[in-house]
Amino acid sequence: MTTQLRDLQTPCLLLDLDIMARNIARVQTAAQRLGVGLRPHVKTPKAIEIGKELGGGIGPITVSTLSEADVFASAGFNDILYATLLSASKVSRVEALLAGGCRLLSLVDSPVAVAQLAAARRGARPLPVLIEIDVDGHRAGVRLGDAFDALAALLIADSGFTLLGAMSYAGASYDIEPDARAVLAERHRRALVAAGQRIAALGGQPEILSFGSTPALMAAATLEGVTEVRGGIFVFQDLFQAGIGACTLDDIALSVLSTVVGHQPDSKRLWIDAGGMALSKDRSTAGRSFDARYGLVTAADGRRLPLWVADVHQELGLVESIDGTPIDFGSAPIGGQLRILPNHSDMTAAAYDRYHLLRGGQLVGTWARHNGW
Amino acid sequence: MTTQLRDLQTPCLLLDLDIMARNIARVQTAAQRLGVGLRPHVKTPKAIEIGKELGGGIGPITVSTLSEADVFASAGFNDILYATLLSASKVSRVEALLAGGCRLLSLVDSPVAVAQLAAARRGARPLPVLIEIDVDGHRAGVRLGDAFDALAALLIADSGFTLLGAMSYAGASYDIEPDARAVLAERHRRALVAAGQRIAALGGQPEILSFGSTPALMAAATLEGVTEVRGGIFVFQDLFQAGIGACTLDDIALSVLSTVVGHQPDSKRLWIDAGGMALSKDRSTAGRSFDARYGLVTAADGRRLPLWVADVHQELGLVESIDGTPIDFGSAPIGGQLRILPNHSDMTAAAYDRYHLLRGGQLVGTWARHNGW
Repeated sequence: MTTQLRDLQTPCLLLDLDIMARNIARVQTAAQRLGVGLRPHVKTPKAIEIGKELGGGIGPITVSTLSEADVFASAGFNDILYATLLSASKVSRVEALLAGGCRLLSLVDSPVAVAQLAAARRGARPLPVLIEIDVDGHRAGVRLGDAFDALAALLIADSGFTLLGAMSYAGASYDIEPDARAVLAERHRRALVAAGQRIAALGGQPEILSFGSTPALMAAATLEGVTEVRGGIFVFQDLFQAGIGACTLDDIALSVLSTVVGHQPDSKRLWIDAGGMALSKDRSTAGRSFDARYGLVTAADGRRLPLWVADVHQELGLVESIDGTPIDFGSAPIGGQLRILPNHSDMTAAAYDRYHLLRGGQLVGTWARHNGW
Repeated sequence: MTTQLRDLQTPCLLLDLDIMARNIARVQTAAQRLGVGLRPHVKTPKAIEIGKELGGGIGPITVSTLSEADVFASAGFNDILYATLLSASKVSRVEALLAGGCRLLSLVDSPVAVAQLAAARRGARPLPVLIEIDVDGHRAGVRLGDAFDALAALLIADSGFTLLGAMSYAGASYDIEPDARAVLAERHRRALVAAGQRIAALGGQPEILSFGSTPALMAAATLEGVTEVRGGIFVFQDLFQAGIGACTLDDIALSVLSTVVGHQPDSKRLWIDAGGMALSKDRSTAGRSFDARYGLVTAADGRRLPLWVADVHQELGLVESIDGTPIDFGSAPIGGQLRILPNHSDMTAAAYDRYHLLRGGQLVGTWARHNGW
């Protein structure tokens, strides 16, 4: 017997495979157009099967935690960028992955960290590293100039490391108008190319120059000299991405299935069994023109309704009309199901250990999700 | 060899058992003073061992999900209030718990839901239920009056249900000044007593009149006529609770252990390996006089530092001085550990599958935490 949405225990996570396939194809096409490899970031899906969809099988990936690295390496992924600055306390886990045959690339941005990593190493194998460079002041990284040169020279000189190149993250692309993203992308491209030139001038081999953020890569006019692009959120998209113009609402592949558990008699609100735990407390749309409170509401079949989740308790969501008028309870009866589009897919998905998969509107199975550190 | 904090992989969750014991004793004393039973809410800790600490062994508990009910019932807890409105789609799970010998109390607030639950029942055993009453407009529930009477009469008449009483949740206690909480608590007490009288007048037996929210129970002058109090957050406390005066910063038993992974050269900020995933995106302190951004920072030994987590990426937290001055990097060297006090313990703990336990400042083991639905 086929499982129907009605058979699922709510709240649970739905993934529309048709939408996801379109999202992946769009970014793969963009990478091909730009002539660069794609190293998708699996911090968003954290699922082996999606990692394979992203790369057309086993390919290079980016991870945000060593737990993701462990899971994906066990599944055969052997070219992994761990895109969070490495600390000495995690070196033994990195060395275990390297010993298992995975080329796990780590990030460094300071001589102090490098000295600590060198002291923590136990294996004979050098640690493959990239230097994180700071281009837009948005995250970690070292600026190009003397500090970068000193760090690169240190890594080239120390046989405990193999300096393979540099990476940058264009996080500022989320905070600027679409028109400005191409300019930002070009700044990052130039910085990465310059970083590669400095590494080469110092005697190293800049094999990897890794460019990141979905909006930046979609906006880039050229990525000449860059070897790969990273992006994660594009696989699911979300209300924040739609709000900044990086996708449309129809591109959001992820939603939370919930059940209506109560109506308020004044018709102004209803309760669903998806609250802060099920939706996350992410309010990245707050204060924006596209503020969606805790998420926009659709019918179980995905049809949009003029409702949003106005507030959350731990396990209850308060649904109201976006325009403040009474809710048409006929579209949301007690016992009926509603779907909630997430503000930020990464945060919402984190509460779940599996995806329920939709294809052609039918449930076709589940995929496991791997959280934690 | 004893495990030290330095041996832990970060980010991870620390629970100070000494502080937790004080927090539990304080609420137990309050319940004794008020002459009512305590039905602690395990939605905050979601750990069997803490459920036992809360009740001095196996005792009545409150849960927010049927997953919690399953876990605690398996551990021997047999008097459980499921404090989220029950939907028909979950009746089979409730019946399985009842068949296993657990008195699982469910909540209803409308005749429509009752009719759906009646239709979904398969077992011979009646469903034990409480009516959720709405006293302060803060959450779900039916108001006292004709609607309450009709619902109570329906449940008393239907042999598929055993109406055991009523419950209310004084959620508004979080949004008012401490002085006003005693007044709110008295409104809830009177409403519960009145609900019990109506149930008795209609021929029912109001065995349970359940009063909730930690701040309301701590503020109540009397709870005469109420049979039990619920509270959850008191076990860990958090920055929001401290901000509203329900505890002090020294009462916060939960923290996230993180590692400093990078310094910005201008000394104005540093990076830790605890970001939005590790801390949650809860910003319940936002816009309050006690706004703590994404959490206040302490040294690994719990000593407070003049720092907070000003912003988060997925796996990186940006730490700044609260007053905007340069950070004393000596107190937070690269590779060193910092602890983050959470805005909202329930949301922060949700990312973790275990607690690392501190007693007398030493790690003494771990307890499993059970998330999900």
